[in-house]
Amino acid sequence: MALLVTKFGGSSVASIDKIKLIAKKIKHLQEEGNNVVVVVSAMGDTTDELIRLACMTGGNLSNREMDMLLATGEQQSAALLALTLQGLGAKAISLTGWQAGISSDANYSKARIYEIKAKRIKTELAAGNIVVVAGFQGLSPDGDITTLGRGGSDTSAVAIAASLAADKCLIFTDVDGVYTADPRMVEKAKKLSYIGYEEMLELASLGAGILQPRAVEFAMLYRVDVEVLCSFNNNSGTLVTEVNSVEKQRVVSGIADDRNCAKIALFDVPDKPGVAMILFKTLAKHAINVDMVIQSAMRNERNDIAFTIENNDLEKALPVVEKLVKEIGASGMAYGENVAKVSIVGAGMQSNPGVAADMFEALADANINIHMISTSEIKVSCIIDEDKIQAAVQVLHKKFELDKVE
Amino acid sequence: MALLVTKFGGSSVASIDKIKLIAKKIKHLQEEGNNVVVVVSAMGDTTDELIRLACMTGGNLSNREMDMLLATGEQQSAALLALTLQGLGAKAISLTGWQAGISSDANYSKARIYEIKAKRIKTELAAGNIVVVAGFQGLSPDGDITTLGRGGSDTSAVAIAASLAADKCLIFTDVDGVYTADPRMVEKAKKLSYIGYEEMLELASLGAGILQPRAVEFAMLYRVDVEVLCSFNNNSGTLVTEVNSVEKQRVVSGIADDRNCAKIALFDVPDKPGVAMILFKTLAKHAINVDMVIQSAMRNERNDIAFTIENNDLEKALPVVEKLVKEIGASGMAYGENVAKVSIVGAGMQSNPGVAADMFEALADANINIHMISTSEIKVSCIIDEDKIQAAVQVLHKKFELDKVE
Repeated sequence: MALLVTKFGGSSVASIDKIKLIAKKIKHLQEEGNNVVVVVSAMGDTTDELIRLACMTGGNLSNREMDMLLATGEQQSAALLALTLQGLGAKAISLTGWQAGISSDANYSKARIYEIKAKRIKTELAAGNIVVVAGFQGLSPDGDITTLGRGGSDTSAVAIAASLAADKCLIFTDVDGVYTADPRMVEKAKKLSYIGYEEMLELASLGAGILQPRAVEFAMLYRVDVEVLCSFNNNSGTLVTEVNSVEKQRVVSGIADDRNCAKIALFDVPDKPGVAMILFKTLAKHAINVDMVIQSAMRNERNDIAFTIENNDLEKALPVVEKLVKEIGASGMAYGENVAKVSIVGAGMQSNPGVAADMFEALADANINIHMISTSEIKVSCIIDEDKIQAAVQVLHKKFELDKVE
Repeated sequence: MALLVTKFGGSSVASIDKIKLIAKKIKHLQEEGNNVVVVVSAMGDTTDELIRLACMTGGNLSNREMDMLLATGEQQSAALLALTLQGLGAKAISLTGWQAGISSDANYSKARIYEIKAKRIKTELAAGNIVVVAGFQGLSPDGDITTLGRGGSDTSAVAIAASLAADKCLIFTDVDGVYTADPRMVEKAKKLSYIGYEEMLELASLGAGILQPRAVEFAMLYRVDVEVLCSFNNNSGTLVTEVNSVEKQRVVSGIADDRNCAKIALFDVPDKPGVAMILFKTLAKHAINVDMVIQSAMRNERNDIAFTIENNDLEKALPVVEKLVKEIGASGMAYGENVAKVSIVGAGMQSNPGVAADMFEALADANINIHMISTSEIKVSCIIDEDKIQAAVQVLHKKFELDKVE
């Protein structure tokens, strides 16, 4: 008898009909002899609708009250799923985050779980219940409701799995696993049967969008085996796990693409200490994340500096940068939205030199110009023209023979 | 500086525009130097929409899960009102029932409050906050969310007022107070400036529908002054309070009407011990409330028995009664929905004999036939033909000179 923690996202509980479908799946897991905990997100557009109402109030949307408001969405879907399971003849009970013993810091809207006292969950499991827990939420030390930020339900599920020492955490989503590349871009993209935590983390950050990075970090920290699989079929998914043996490590596991990029360049920045510091500190102060940075060779003691940010942040960034151009005495600036990022990710890179060179060669052979490069131990990313992104993913997928991966 | 507990019902928070209106009223109360606690119901049709979703699940709508589901409605409106107040520049914080320290029994869907630990409310008031509490909900001894049943938010407000020893509990509704009769029926109906708890209780039970009976009972028990007034104007309301002095007691304070009546008659019921017991016990077992009962004079050791129930219960009651007719050996049954109940209520009746006779006289003068009569210390009710109800209310209003009442 295994202990499974499962998680279903908003699109899996978007309607009562969908809730009925997943309820059958959950009941089946119990009938196979497993103890089952289910973590749910809010129904489809509930959260958006609540945000819409909140915006109408004219208030400043204080995070404490927004968390109080938004946490109701998951409480509703948890209760509705418990009712549906009961309707199928299963024993089920729903719990809010605080009832499930999920403690977080008081950092409203992006709180971090720091402890789970799973006593109530264990009691309800022992009583034969399927335990449905409202995801995305916790309780602050002062007894206030917090939410865990984007993808918080993934983190709820992995954290509960860790605290229960569950056999596995099953994350049910729209897709049936992690692929070597976006299947809409590469016809021969293959589903990976397993992937290491670090690789998954790089793929998640790069926008594969299947598992939230914080959930992967949590899984890595507590060595929780996480399987990503589809809510609406019975295909096997992708196991996110510890991949230690060099034999199991692939040189390249996947190609990630990210179109949410914008590039900003500053011309003729004076080459004196502290200028770059001012630039990037100011951007950080405005909560603008800088991804890649490139500084051109010095000419007449002045440099060109270019960097990329999320395209979403561009509107916010432009006036900040324009002001900075004057302050630091640069000659001007330019920006472009028509760039994208392509990355290769693989734990085996560490022991296989020359992988980056292979990547640059493949892109060069396909006449794809590289604007910027950044590398980490298990990842190489290149900024290229946005209209070349599909071609880039395709040539790299072929170059690293990912259609043959398992 | 007074401490006020206010309550706004579902129609007062039905939209963000309405929430903005009441937020101004609440802020004004604070600006006048009062400490203010606000209890809110769920927005307009939120509860109905959640029930609709729950019905679609195919589950048996277990009360524990329904309470978990429905309690979100009040949590949402509390958070939205707090956001709106903040938008007006006021300090405000929302609390769920359990955060406000409201403990109840575990009788899901109709739980009773047994204690309020108002520490958190007091802390937030001391910090200068308007404290917005989600009404209608409590926490069971096992840490589960409960709801208090119909009109539960009224009870939440009165109970919080009692626990805080508040100066007054203001119940804001659609109407601006308690009238001597339904103003749609009697043009000269007058708003009462005050009314005693017992009288209010009789008027509430009789369907005046302004304050829930349990809230009035709570107010009576803890001697809380409750004012009923309108959310959307600034008229003074009706104070529900202790009316001890005989001088302040009116002989008749108001005329109540209730069309939600049905009459059932059983013919030729054998006149032996236990028959009536079987009849009314069986109805009680099916949760059908019997209001009035009349038993005709004995003929040949057989009686006719007639009684009234809520019209809503008629469909449920008929098969039960039909079965009983056979079991107890009656000769048959009949029922009618075209009856209504008119009642006079007044604490002064106790010391003024002849009030009931005045009522019967007024109805007789107007050619209104009385089918059944029931009396209590401060109330006389008559069942009459439904099409005579407006005439009855009008003649009684005139007879007892209620247009001159204050």
